[in-house]
Amino acid sequence: MQPNKRYLFTPGPAPVPPEVLLEMARPIIHHRTPEFSAALDQARERLKPLFGTRSEIILLAASGTGAMEAAVNNLLDPGDAAVFVNGGKFGERWGRLLKAYGMVGHEIRVEWGRAVRPEQIEQALRDHPETRAVFVQASETSTCAVHPVAEIAAITRRRDTLLVADGITSVGVFEQRMDDWGVDALVAGSQKALMLPPGLAMIALSERALERAGKSRAPRFYFDLPRELRLQREEHTTAWTAAVSLVLGLNKALELIHDETLPRVFRRHALMAEATRAAAPALGLKLLAPENPAPGVTGILVPEKVDGSKVVRSMRDRLGVGVQGGQDQMKGRLVRIGHMGYVSPFDMLIAVGALEIALKEQGFHFTMGAGVAAVQEHIARDAAS
Amino acid sequence: MQPNKRYLFTPGPAPVPPEVLLEMARPIIHHRTPEFSAALDQARERLKPLFGTRSEIILLAASGTGAMEAAVNNLLDPGDAAVFVNGGKFGERWGRLLKAYGMVGHEIRVEWGRAVRPEQIEQALRDHPETRAVFVQASETSTCAVHPVAEIAAITRRRDTLLVADGITSVGVFEQRMDDWGVDALVAGSQKALMLPPGLAMIALSERALERAGKSRAPRFYFDLPRELRLQREEHTTAWTAAVSLVLGLNKALELIHDETLPRVFRRHALMAEATRAAAPALGLKLLAPENPAPGVTGILVPEKVDGSKVVRSMRDRLGVGVQGGQDQMKGRLVRIGHMGYVSPFDMLIAVGALEIALKEQGFHFTMGAGVAAVQEHIARDAAS
Repeated sequence: MQPNKRYLFTPGPAPVPPEVLLEMARPIIHHRTPEFSAALDQARERLKPLFGTRSEIILLAASGTGAMEAAVNNLLDPGDAAVFVNGGKFGERWGRLLKAYGMVGHEIRVEWGRAVRPEQIEQALRDHPETRAVFVQASETSTCAVHPVAEIAAITRRRDTLLVADGITSVGVFEQRMDDWGVDALVAGSQKALMLPPGLAMIALSERALERAGKSRAPRFYFDLPRELRLQREEHTTAWTAAVSLVLGLNKALELIHDETLPRVFRRHALMAEATRAAAPALGLKLLAPENPAPGVTGILVPEKVDGSKVVRSMRDRLGVGVQGGQDQMKGRLVRIGHMGYVSPFDMLIAVGALEIALKEQGFHFTMGAGVAAVQEHIARDAAS
Repeated sequence: MQPNKRYLFTPGPAPVPPEVLLEMARPIIHHRTPEFSAALDQARERLKPLFGTRSEIILLAASGTGAMEAAVNNLLDPGDAAVFVNGGKFGERWGRLLKAYGMVGHEIRVEWGRAVRPEQIEQALRDHPETRAVFVQASETSTCAVHPVAEIAAITRRRDTLLVADGITSVGVFEQRMDDWGVDALVAGSQKALMLPPGLAMIALSERALERAGKSRAPRFYFDLPRELRLQREEHTTAWTAAVSLVLGLNKALELIHDETLPRVFRRHALMAEATRAAAPALGLKLLAPENPAPGVTGILVPEKVDGSKVVRSMRDRLGVGVQGGQDQMKGRLVRIGHMGYVSPFDMLIAVGALEIALKEQGFHFTMGAGVAAVQEHIARDAAS
């Protein structure tokens, strides 16, 4: 079977709604016009509740890694000490970024699938009192786990230590309360819950982070946050040529999100995550992050004797249902099912249904349909509530 | 009159063909799939003749400035000496980039609208024999002028000095012979002759530039060219999440370009430029760059007593014909008409026709229609040839 209709349940890029695709397919406009400025202003304003901040959101023409880089070289000087949580591929990236810019990165290594414990942050800050910033993932996409950002912020906000959180698979997925928690920088990307193609990154800075950014001596040009903020706030345009169609699409996507209302968006993501997670035990499988699972992506461990890469390839290439495997140490051992943005709980019947078929092909024994039934049960319970 | 149909003759973003808009409006795909890899490979291959190189083209999810930054921090070490030609806003940007990354930039200042003379390069390299690279614009978009890249390359290729050219409004507009001339790095952007929305940048490196990039000690992460090249060549994907829809759109745009054939594309751009330039004297106006005009954008000086900003605003907001004014020192003194990519010579009847109407409104005296007639005459002559 090579189906004509295909599904995308990868943890980014995630599906883009037709309304957004059509908005982006309109004739292009110039980035220094009143029309573009109006869309930019509106999109930046509409983003604030998703970040949980009254601060200005800064848009960058880049993928999420660009905004991660901006957090590093705008908030720290070369030689500055930082603590970073390495509990997956994206946590590791903080370490590589810090190294690239000559900062001293103190690593807190966390087993894949686990959350960092706030005591570990406390301890690291005691060991390295000169630490200027802590870097963490609000949601670690590679392990499908969340870290306790609010608790970490409760530690950093009492000190002269900034907290930088990667919210690429968190913003728009579950509630972020940047201001209330005391997060100093929150990073997002377009291709997840914001329902856009990749190519647009966002970052919001707290007041003290912005002050630090104004003094940073690390080299930067394309990702110069104080400059971008000034231009976006005062001139209603971007420093460099904006990713025009993505900004217009973002504004449309945010209109859809606010039409649905944020509480419902968050509840939908929670339901999709719970339903998908429930499929694992029903199939006799385990989750990679059972204690602190991410609401945007679910990581299911494949059985010992099954090659996860084959499962993923079969789902994608033969069944037309795109999911992702594990990265690095989890290669071949994990199936990651994304449920972010333009995805409905019913879609998880398809994701889990295809997973079952691919597992059966690989010789794994279970009751076909048990996972799908678990998903369905969760949807039914929610519908009745 | 507030027309329903609007035109975009800005020097980027330039119009995007419907075929490309529709290609980008297809359901999004993941960037680590055979389907995306095939499009990436094909687009990178199809770009080579536009750059005039057998080298690999590297794609970056950024606007053109990102690729300019990549040229600086991948090819030079902090403290290295460089010569840059500052004959406009983008030449000035080379200087700011060099400064941001701690290089020593020796400026060759050129009057706006003029071309740098090869002797000036020779002299600068005599004055600063330690120079590791020369930075120049193949086409300086702010002044609508070209610099003699081939002649400059004839100087740099004999030495251990790299030549970096900004081809953002040159690639796909007129012939670039990177390999034959001996250009070491050529930068391009998506939103000009490549007929795409902004958000994708490209750079090609000569063999010696690539070798230098492998050794550079300047800080970089998002714009790490050796890493990107390795992944794009060997893994058929990008280091960071690709701007998927722009890459698919690029491949489509390049298909259109090669269907038209490159010689015809270049000839069409030359005709549009000649026809647009001819309108200036017909209206009693002067060009900013009469001796070395750019084939992608024409800069017409507005008469002394006319406020060019009003002309541009009237054309854009009242007549629906988007053009750009001057930047910095040319603010209010220049009208820039872009003719790149998805534009036909007949479109210049509209651009010049609207310019005439806006000039008349501002009280400038001339024979209405004289500029339009000059455009028409050039098209007729070309059609008859």
